[in-house]
Amino acid sequence: MLNFAKPPQDKALLDEATDFTPRFDDKGLVTAVVTDARDNAVLMLAHMNAEALSLTIETGFAHYYSRSRNAIWKKGETSGNLQKVEQMLTDCDQDAILLKVSMSGHDAACHTGRRSCFYRAVSASDGTAVLETIADHRAFDPKTVYGK
Amino acid sequence: MLNFAKPPQDKALLDEATDFTPRFDDKGLVTAVVTDARDNAVLMLAHMNAEALSLTIETGFAHYYSRSRNAIWKKGETSGNLQKVEQMLTDCDQDAILLKVSMSGHDAACHTGRRSCFYRAVSASDGTAVLETIADHRAFDPKTVYGK
Repeated sequence: MLNFAKPPQDKALLDEATDFTPRFDDKGLVTAVVTDARDNAVLMLAHMNAEALSLTIETGFAHYYSRSRNAIWKKGETSGNLQKVEQMLTDCDQDAILLKVSMSGHDAACHTGRRSCFYRAVSASDGTAVLETIADHRAFDPKTVYGK
Repeated sequence: MLNFAKPPQDKALLDEATDFTPRFDDKGLVTAVVTDARDNAVLMLAHMNAEALSLTIETGFAHYYSRSRNAIWKKGETSGNLQKVEQMLTDCDQDAILLKVSMSGHDAACHTGRRSCFYRAVSASDGTAVLETIADHRAFDPKTVYGK
């Protein structure tokens, strides 16, 4: 497993650093944004602990940490929709990760069978917020892929 | 302020819902990914509480919640780099927001003066993780814009 050094106390040093010192939150996680390397479409958002981050860097395939299952999760292990990491970036204060990936399998990231988890637009209507589905193509049937 | 209804207990209902019931975390926040509406480039990652989310929907300009300052923050208020929301989306389980924005001012989202906060690539070298700057153009000088 890769060894991640502790971030400097002075946050101003993070901006221009050439050492990767991820700033894990109080639960030991960083947030990962996942985009399709072909067109930059945002596919999903997930979390990584140090082990998931290390596995992702070392294997070249996206690994996340499931907060609901408290377990490391190799994306696509069940569905076949593996995410090969074409490029990994971090942000100015090193508490977020951007993965540009190529998907295999059904070419879909969402457990609903859609390419992206972001398939609904938010708008206001009479003082409440409503959703409208703007991308509804299903690349796979979740019942078939994940069982019931 | 918009009224956000509580999410359903059964998480499976969130996927296909037409009501927006954001799942705020234990600190009352959702994560927002911000992309450039022109080319989908990921610009930054931020957090929103209910008030920031409501202000963003109602005004059409991105508002975030600063965890370090414990305050609502209208993006660009100091720098002039406002973010006009072209589209807001949410993800399958409604705990993340995607904003597609048009920037004004210097056309830059990062406090370092760069267009995107994700300007460094991560890779492994001899068992540690290192960063390489891959996008170094500064649209503004932070010292001039934010003072010292």
